[in-house]
Amino acid sequence: MANNTITAAKGFWAAGVHCGVKKSGKLDLALLACPTGATAAAVFTTNKIVAAPVTICKKHVKSSKVYAVVINSGNANACTGSAGMKNAIAICNKVAGELNANPHSVLIASTGIIGKQLPIRKVTAGITKAAKQLRNGQRAGSDFAKAIMTTDTKCKQAVRRFEISGKKVAIAATAKGAGMIGPNMATTITVITTDIAITKLLLAHALKAAVGVSLNKLTVDGHQSTNDTAVIMASGAAGNRPVTSPCPRYRKFAKALTEVCADLTRQMALDAEGATRMFTVVVKGAATKADACKAARAVADYNLVKCAVHGADPNWGRIICAAGSCGVKLYPDKMSCKIGDITVFRNGRPTKFDAKKASKVISRTGHTITIDLGAGKYTDFCFGCDLSADYVKINADYHT
Amino acid sequence: MANNTITAAKGFWAAGVHCGVKKSGKLDLALLACPTGATAAAVFTTNKIVAAPVTICKKHVKSSKVYAVVINSGNANACTGSAGMKNAIAICNKVAGELNANPHSVLIASTGIIGKQLPIRKVTAGITKAAKQLRNGQRAGSDFAKAIMTTDTKCKQAVRRFEISGKKVAIAATAKGAGMIGPNMATTITVITTDIAITKLLLAHALKAAVGVSLNKLTVDGHQSTNDTAVIMASGAAGNRPVTSPCPRYRKFAKALTEVCADLTRQMALDAEGATRMFTVVVKGAATKADACKAARAVADYNLVKCAVHGADPNWGRIICAAGSCGVKLYPDKMSCKIGDITVFRNGRPTKFDAKKASKVISRTGHTITIDLGAGKYTDFCFGCDLSADYVKINADYHT
Repeated sequence: MANNTITAAKGFWAAGVHCGVKKSGKLDLALLACPTGATAAAVFTTNKIVAAPVTICKKHVKSSKVYAVVINSGNANACTGSAGMKNAIAICNKVAGELNANPHSVLIASTGIIGKQLPIRKVTAGITKAAKQLRNGQRAGSDFAKAIMTTDTKCKQAVRRFEISGKKVAIAATAKGAGMIGPNMATTITVITTDIAITKLLLAHALKAAVGVSLNKLTVDGHQSTNDTAVIMASGAAGNRPVTSPCPRYRKFAKALTEVCADLTRQMALDAEGATRMFTVVVKGAATKADACKAARAVADYNLVKCAVHGADPNWGRIICAAGSCGVKLYPDKMSCKIGDITVFRNGRPTKFDAKKASKVISRTGHTITIDLGAGKYTDFCFGCDLSADYVKINADYHT
Repeated sequence: MANNTITAAKGFWAAGVHCGVKKSGKLDLALLACPTGATAAAVFTTNKIVAAPVTICKKHVKSSKVYAVVINSGNANACTGSAGMKNAIAICNKVAGELNANPHSVLIASTGIIGKQLPIRKVTAGITKAAKQLRNGQRAGSDFAKAIMTTDTKCKQAVRRFEISGKKVAIAATAKGAGMIGPNMATTITVITTDIAITKLLLAHALKAAVGVSLNKLTVDGHQSTNDTAVIMASGAAGNRPVTSPCPRYRKFAKALTEVCADLTRQMALDAEGATRMFTVVVKGAATKADACKAARAVADYNLVKCAVHGADPNWGRIICAAGSCGVKLYPDKMSCKIGDITVFRNGRPTKFDAKKASKVISRTGHTITIDLGAGKYTDFCFGCDLSADYVKINADYHT
């Protein structure tokens, strides 16, 4: 079976160990290394409160070459003041020491509970352990994926393979994310490796575009976290002539990268805390692109819509209500709404539709809710998931 | 026992009957009459999709004298196109006929499911029945309150009595509302009666101010409905010299009205769908009043905060995260957060606090979460409630 983990791209070594942040004994420290140095790019949360590792990572990703990514789970190192910042720096220093690299070429991310200081000695000891276990096979990649999980119940991994001018290229990725997911962000923590040779500028451009139509379009509970980070590293080990312009080779790469990110997004939506199904909201006929985006998000975020989806109830009144409530331009008498292919509301009036059939559509994961605002020509979309009693249980019981 | 219903103010007669909109057989049609004619004012939803009765009521409330309010529950008459508009007009006409009044002097509201046509014959037959049962006692007021309920489990009523220049004045109110409640609106359906003599302008002014710091500050699920309406009617039966300027007599009235609205708000928060406790979010140190309002709402609306409150968990990281995510100006290093009187976060750093004590504070209804953004001098607040598994059950099972 082909390697479907983060190590599927040539030039990357990975490890995942238990260092002691998680009391459960599960893997909680992930290390990825690119011994030859990788071209890197990243996107981050736009939350105004950012965790210490985000501040550090923003700086380090500017390095021309990046040699490693280190991620701990179980503790977000967010809202931890100067002590948290010192810990994040100490982690980068430790990784750099183990790998003989410059600390500025080490990327860092954390995920887990907010407001607690990291047990830094445990983490640095874990880094020594992880550095010894760095390998390039399936097992190592799988351990890496497990070590970044928090409330995720499943590993999220995606790989695409394609050829560029006769050279085999791979894009491999892993992500964690189950709650605190809102659009307009880099989303949760995503690490992508590729062996393509490409300039930093184009890599950054491709990442931003891919995330914009995938990870950034997912809302689970409408808020982006303090730690959202998506990193991509390109080792160049595929041996292709470097991609230096937005040529067809670039577009092929960008398309595959978008597919990888879309794949991860689907996996995240389906593993969202308590979720049983995901859906897509498409808004048409908006006066502006921003209105379309806002309305799609408002519908996908609305608890009453999420509950209706959970109950497989074609309660389109809540959909229309959410669109009307979010402040976008719309003409009530020109509005329409479809659940899958079934028109439930047309030109401001309810239609007669088969409620059982509509309920069946909603009970399927991946169904689409389409709203036409009747106000213009712009369209946008958003991915959402249902709200279940389990979401409440998970988040009322997840104690600090 | 003193009458604590909507008929506590002199000059009003009420009734509540079952006309057949609700299949359960519960009361579903409420009628309030002021035979001498009342000065009236109202505030409405700012949702861009408004129900037919809202459109009609906005017009009719401009009449110099209002003689009745008619409300049906079980059907919102929203998103019902021109047929819905015809039905709303037919209802006003029917009430006017029964009471020998001008249809334009009849106010109207509906609440319940969106997108279904009203069984208009049942409603008009119910109006005849209700008109015959109009009385001014406690029982009639109580029937009125019951007849406007939907998923409410309790009647919401509030009365204040005071004197103005030696004349006894009463303000009496009833409201319904348990879900689809978001700030910046008139909120759900509220009917207030008073026997004070006051000008229409001052009555409208007092209502807007009172609702602004009470009903409009409550968020249950962040969205205002298509039908939110708050109506006040002043019969003048107290016999006071009419209040015509913002004098001390006006201020006494305005204060009592605010108390009545605050009382209803508390009752609504505590009866919110699935809620077990309510809380207040206070935002201090905001750069603008709008920022303070936005941040308070973002925190009160955030599902992860609502779940933490449900679990009595002092998970302040989610509070800070919500404030950071909503786009307001803030200085992370100057931010603080308190749960009750317990400081959990100070100048961007976690404090050592007694988690058990903080959990106890959260488990009390009416506790306050205070966030200082460290960005200015503005303050605002918002009322919220917890999110429970029951909210999901109620809203996943409430089938169309």
